[in-house]
Amino acid sequence: MAIRLSTLDADFETRFAELLSGKREVSEDVDHVVRDILEDVRKRGDAAVLDYTARFDRLSAASMAELRVTEAEIEAAMKAVPQEVLDALSLARDRIESHHARQMPKDDRYTDAVGVELGSRWTAIEAVGLYVPGGKASYPSSVLMNAVPAKVAGVERIVMVVPSPDGDLNPQVLAAARLAGVSEIYRIGGAQAVAALAFGTETIAPVSKIVGPGNAFVAAAKRRVFGTVGIDMIAGPSEVLVVADAENDPDWLAADLLAQAEHDEVAQSILITDSADLASAVEQAVERQLKTLPKAAIAGASWRDFGAVIVTRDLDEAMPLVNRIAAEHLELAVADPEALLLKVRSAGAVFMGRHTPEAVGDYVGGSNHVLPTARSARFSSGLSVLDFVKRTSILKCTPQSLREIGPAAIVLGEAEGLAGHARSVAVRLNL
Amino acid sequence: MAIRLSTLDADFETRFAELLSGKREVSEDVDHVVRDILEDVRKRGDAAVLDYTARFDRLSAASMAELRVTEAEIEAAMKAVPQEVLDALSLARDRIESHHARQMPKDDRYTDAVGVELGSRWTAIEAVGLYVPGGKASYPSSVLMNAVPAKVAGVERIVMVVPSPDGDLNPQVLAAARLAGVSEIYRIGGAQAVAALAFGTETIAPVSKIVGPGNAFVAAAKRRVFGTVGIDMIAGPSEVLVVADAENDPDWLAADLLAQAEHDEVAQSILITDSADLASAVEQAVERQLKTLPKAAIAGASWRDFGAVIVTRDLDEAMPLVNRIAAEHLELAVADPEALLLKVRSAGAVFMGRHTPEAVGDYVGGSNHVLPTARSARFSSGLSVLDFVKRTSILKCTPQSLREIGPAAIVLGEAEGLAGHARSVAVRLNL
Repeated sequence: MAIRLSTLDADFETRFAELLSGKREVSEDVDHVVRDILEDVRKRGDAAVLDYTARFDRLSAASMAELRVTEAEIEAAMKAVPQEVLDALSLARDRIESHHARQMPKDDRYTDAVGVELGSRWTAIEAVGLYVPGGKASYPSSVLMNAVPAKVAGVERIVMVVPSPDGDLNPQVLAAARLAGVSEIYRIGGAQAVAALAFGTETIAPVSKIVGPGNAFVAAAKRRVFGTVGIDMIAGPSEVLVVADAENDPDWLAADLLAQAEHDEVAQSILITDSADLASAVEQAVERQLKTLPKAAIAGASWRDFGAVIVTRDLDEAMPLVNRIAAEHLELAVADPEALLLKVRSAGAVFMGRHTPEAVGDYVGGSNHVLPTARSARFSSGLSVLDFVKRTSILKCTPQSLREIGPAAIVLGEAEGLAGHARSVAVRLNL
Repeated sequence: MAIRLSTLDADFETRFAELLSGKREVSEDVDHVVRDILEDVRKRGDAAVLDYTARFDRLSAASMAELRVTEAEIEAAMKAVPQEVLDALSLARDRIESHHARQMPKDDRYTDAVGVELGSRWTAIEAVGLYVPGGKASYPSSVLMNAVPAKVAGVERIVMVVPSPDGDLNPQVLAAARLAGVSEIYRIGGAQAVAALAFGTETIAPVSKIVGPGNAFVAAAKRRVFGTVGIDMIAGPSEVLVVADAENDPDWLAADLLAQAEHDEVAQSILITDSADLASAVEQAVERQLKTLPKAAIAGASWRDFGAVIVTRDLDEAMPLVNRIAAEHLELAVADPEALLLKVRSAGAVFMGRHTPEAVGDYVGGSNHVLPTARSARFSSGLSVLDFVKRTSILKCTPQSLREIGPAAIVLGEAEGLAGHARSVAVRLNL
């Protein structure tokens, strides 16, 4: 049973602050192990990756080429996945594609009042690595969410790595990779896969950016190679915040809370409502639904350990709390979600109204499901086309416009003690 | 004297690859020291910051309030800075402001063919920390380049930290902070200042993102607090790449190469030209100009240890090299820079033509001088308004549109073994 808070309680602020600062993940200290693996792969390349793959994934191969997923394997995977699932993945791919196409930033070029030409020019990153976890978190939808925006951005080479412990590989993941246009797939994972992508090996050409979720080793490796390559955010456990007025079906909301909870024992589901009656009804519906949920053990643990129900005087009182939580997923299950949206300052994604369960956004809404967790919506955004492009700024002076702004550059160069800076302008102005 | 390479040389590819992979910075291993400082500040707050400031900056204070720069001090600084410099800073501020205003991303909201409403909504980060180094790299222009885009983005609170070893503080830096609209300034630096910004103390409310350059301790601290707060890129030593045809004044180009070199012994200046004669003339001009450059010791060391002159058969041959170098600053000192620009894939900023010395971009061009170093232009961009905003995605289904796309979400939820996801959709469709 989740904790229950009310803004009427004298100790509300203390308990809410505790809820906010509560750690859901024990961060394993794997940094030294990871450092050694990275160094080893950097030095020994393929041979090191093969060694770690044999040791950690119990998968022996004589060469890296053997670990590359073949065309035939991908074809076989496409055949192994039920048509219904392929159709759903295709629908998802198309919807993600058309939504993300709107995110393409536009080049800009203009001449200002003094005749200086300025601009911004966007280009795609040439090669991107996509980490896909093995085991329980090996989701085809994640492949689409990471690969399709890269493709839309114009990334030419998308290299997927996915560990296949004991040789097991989810055919749905391969099918999603095919549908998304992934260029190369290797059955490798862990810090060794991150190292191979970042530094390159004899077989795998290096990429310029690595995206995708992974375990503690993968996260530590990404943090360490940041700078050599770009990385996306370090993903934490998932969370949903449902804001609801009294006029909701408790079963719908309970289903939404449990959909989040079933991801992980450390997922977090929070309900904020101005109706104590609804709060109680949802709590009961959660218990009822848990009885028939296949992943009841996981969802039940998450709800018990990290779930929360917060009752406020009214919905206005809810919004500052919403912004402090800065949830990855925010459902506004209220009569007028547009009014509340205007007060949302920090949230990864907002699901508007009673008919937009968060799970729609996980799969087929079209927006991205890679979103900022652990309150990082305060400063970061979900994955988008912008993560796969970079901007070059452009500056162009004529002799005349350099004469307009150059003298101020000379003053500042001298003021900063950088006479060489000043001179490079002065020499062109015969000063 | 810089190294000289020619694409005609048999060993060109080897030597060029060496140039690319050459390390210019020895990364000090300060990670353990930094970890302890961060932990200490997190636990002891103000008291810890005061201790470290007394120890590292030889600046004792009884309370953190004493380390806050007062209104009177800022006023005094404004008076201490020559009017000419204030005017140049104001011009720079205005130009940065008007260029960055064009970078504001636009909200998007639309309804697709099946009636699903999608959107993106941009909001400013509420509070940002700005690290300004003390000592030789304490530049007023950097304050403008970091603070003005934040202000343009709508950031409400900009907290500047700047170490003042032995109490020394550059009045130009305070003046720039005032002109840029910085909200609070503290005389603290190092990992302890990063910790104070990230975790907050009794006196300093925490921020959500930290930007600005710093030494090895600052860089390590930023890397460690990444996740708790956002950070900008980890800046490496500066670099310029000048692409020039034969029709250039060797003195202009030499001045540009030295302007970069005077920053730092580990800065890098590279000239690529299709004219061996120009190459030699520039090399001679560099030696000549070094004789009168105030920072000749620094610039000379940089040019000697990391400078390079590359002669190619023609300019077309230069462009793939340009993209492999992925320079922070790229000057196209050629007759038709627009033609070459089309072939630029990776560069932080491009300076077009013979009359746009890079130093103009450092100060008054209007574009940002915080740019990706160390080949990171392959995957990242210069600082912009986008670094100070975040995007919330919006999804809104009606009962009808949920019926259109919901069934595919149910299929994928079941396929991924997430029955709770499927149920949260099905319960709304009476399935």
